[in-house]
Amino acid sequence: MSVLVLGTVAIDNVKTPFGHRKNMLGGSAAHFAMAARLFTKVNLVAVIGEDFPKKYIHFLRSKGINLTSLKMGRGKTFRWHGEYKKEDLSTALTLATELGVLSDFIPDVAHHQRYIPNIFLANIDPDIQLGLLDVIKAPRMVGVDSMNLWINHKKKSLLRLLKKADLFVANEGEARLLSKENNLIKAAKFLRQLGPRLIIIKKGEHGVLFYSDRIKFCFPAYPIEKVIDPTGAGDTFAGGLMGFLSKVKTLNEQNLKKAVLYATTIASFNVEHFGMIRTSRLTLSAVHKRMRELRRFISH
Amino acid sequence: MSVLVLGTVAIDNVKTPFGHRKNMLGGSAAHFAMAARLFTKVNLVAVIGEDFPKKYIHFLRSKGINLTSLKMGRGKTFRWHGEYKKEDLSTALTLATELGVLSDFIPDVAHHQRYIPNIFLANIDPDIQLGLLDVIKAPRMVGVDSMNLWINHKKKSLLRLLKKADLFVANEGEARLLSKENNLIKAAKFLRQLGPRLIIIKKGEHGVLFYSDRIKFCFPAYPIEKVIDPTGAGDTFAGGLMGFLSKVKTLNEQNLKKAVLYATTIASFNVEHFGMIRTSRLTLSAVHKRMRELRRFISH
Repeated sequence: MSVLVLGTVAIDNVKTPFGHRKNMLGGSAAHFAMAARLFTKVNLVAVIGEDFPKKYIHFLRSKGINLTSLKMGRGKTFRWHGEYKKEDLSTALTLATELGVLSDFIPDVAHHQRYIPNIFLANIDPDIQLGLLDVIKAPRMVGVDSMNLWINHKKKSLLRLLKKADLFVANEGEARLLSKENNLIKAAKFLRQLGPRLIIIKKGEHGVLFYSDRIKFCFPAYPIEKVIDPTGAGDTFAGGLMGFLSKVKTLNEQNLKKAVLYATTIASFNVEHFGMIRTSRLTLSAVHKRMRELRRFISH
Repeated sequence: MSVLVLGTVAIDNVKTPFGHRKNMLGGSAAHFAMAARLFTKVNLVAVIGEDFPKKYIHFLRSKGINLTSLKMGRGKTFRWHGEYKKEDLSTALTLATELGVLSDFIPDVAHHQRYIPNIFLANIDPDIQLGLLDVIKAPRMVGVDSMNLWINHKKKSLLRLLKKADLFVANEGEARLLSKENNLIKAAKFLRQLGPRLIIIKKGEHGVLFYSDRIKFCFPAYPIEKVIDPTGAGDTFAGGLMGFLSKVKTLNEQNLKKAVLYATTIASFNVEHFGMIRTSRLTLSAVHKRMRELRRFISH
């Protein structure tokens, strides 16, 4: 069963203590796709500008990602310039954002793609996420990611969206901001009340908390000594998660735990190099090798 | 095999969002003892002042803690006044410290106690820790805890001490301060080079990282929704850890993991009530019940 992901495809300039990379392929949907492709067919719904490098189109296609609903808008591709400081490699400082074609993006989903059962609404304006959901026919599972910007400025739309979601993936800061709870278990409970029956709170290097009515668990992250560029780690996590879940029959405890372990493992590769350099070269066998190490690291 | 712990016995005034408690029994050695007693005979080496309430002597004794080397000095008992704010319940703000008898404390260890195999040097001036170690005859395992104050002001003594230690228990902040590494794996590696072959970095609600040359693992904390008073959680953790390890024959992976799970579980009880209210009433059967839940929470 394939996955449809809505989100951004971006051109990123990123500066970290380990270097400065310009004009990299980035964006929430692109990072998601690069992970989910390891498990299933990924259908991308996004917009690019007229300046979008052809080589990135070829690159995405060469990874088996379906670009039928990747639209080219009039204007420039969405751009993000960010920096990570040595003192806190986990927090991105946004230096500049150029919305470009994103500012009036209305997703165009090819008719046959509207029947895809697994939908992930990666980080993008919640009104665009709601718009996409309206054309989807019979989703089996709808996952949502968001960010502080939308929690602060488009809360009503985000809350409307969460009512329709099955899965909400938030990082620690977003979970606290939305719930106004410092304690993450309380925050997770609050988010559960907003609608989604599956809540995942990502804690960066500290791992993941999973919360649902009947199933609760927590795993640490795979320990990475040299974090080069964490951009897209959350999207990569979501891609690994949804990719695996799209292949399982039931969302039981065993499958949910396995999905979170896959997601954690794949995200750990993402941060080891700039942009998608590491994840785009990743194979499932490398993932399995590291996942065995992770299992050993957290076994008791 | 019994445990000898050197540290503080204090009178604490603590304010948290859930209340204000005055003149509670506190201190690193007392919290340690309250956890370690669940596994083994605990011998306390500490100093109290002439104002120390008799009821606390009876209380400690009633918990089976050996007070032979609990010395009464001239002057007042060490006092700590601390506060935890709603925004960050994990960080103690020290409002006042009155050293009292601690300022010229020289530990007096009864002769027969010098042959105790398991030694824990809980948080106290590293020169006092070094002094105690000098009179110990044939330690099997020496554990050390410290704090930012000593890392900043008594680094030389602390480094001398760590050369003689087998186990170093540090929290995230202390590990980063001492190693000047932000990444906790790198920090753990650095601490290992200072001497102790077993490194434990406590990450509060995010759990624990264990690091040694051959064995590395990571567990999340048991999730507590309502943290009332985290004072002494680290000492309680160390007490559970050393208490269990003092009973095992070999420090293999299985035993180390079990020790950390015990320590995590017992520390989770500590934060649920003020001071030692919860841990002093704790039984091993309550610990085992919660440890089963913790195992389930982190199983994969």
